[in-house]
Amino acid sequence: AGDAATGKTKAAICAACHGIDGVAISALYPNLKGQNAPYLEGAIKAYRDGQRTGGMAAQMAPMAQGLSDQDIADLAAYFESLK
Amino acid sequence: AGDAATGKTKAAICAACHGIDGVAISALYPNLKGQNAPYLEGAIKAYRDGQRTGGMAAQMAPMAQGLSDQDIADLAAYFESLK
Repeated sequence: AGDAATGKTKAAICAACHGIDGVAISALYPNLKGQNAPYLEGAIKAYRDGQRTGGMAAQMAPMAQGLSDQDIADLAAYFESLK
Repeated sequence: AGDAATGKTKAAICAACHGIDGVAISALYPNLKGQNAPYLEGAIKAYRDGQRTGGMAAQMAPMAQGLSDQDIADLAAYFESLK
């Protein structure tokens, strides 16, 4: 399972667009604050594994490229934990 | 642009999984409450146009299939309007 505290230490790059508080800096990006971690894991993996090409995939896929499953679980736990 | 009131009249099917209040019935689905409408439009179109295959695409793509751009704009405006 993911660990929110560990996720926070990995979230700097994500925060650049999604906000460290999970409120996106642009309306073109999703807010992640309080989002469901299992959903987030599936979505990030889909970007990482080249299963998403439309929408913002061109920006997001490179972000997900180097992430391990544990990184993804921690990041998802972190953003879900934001209330 | 989308119209939230019109979107609500089109949201019954979406609400079955995402909740009429935008809080998903399962953690495998994203909460849509207060989500950014421009992001939502891009994501729904990506499902509709076959640009998403991973994650929950198998469930979501059929839902987006019959939607017009106006439907999508109205639905996105509706879910964004939920606070």
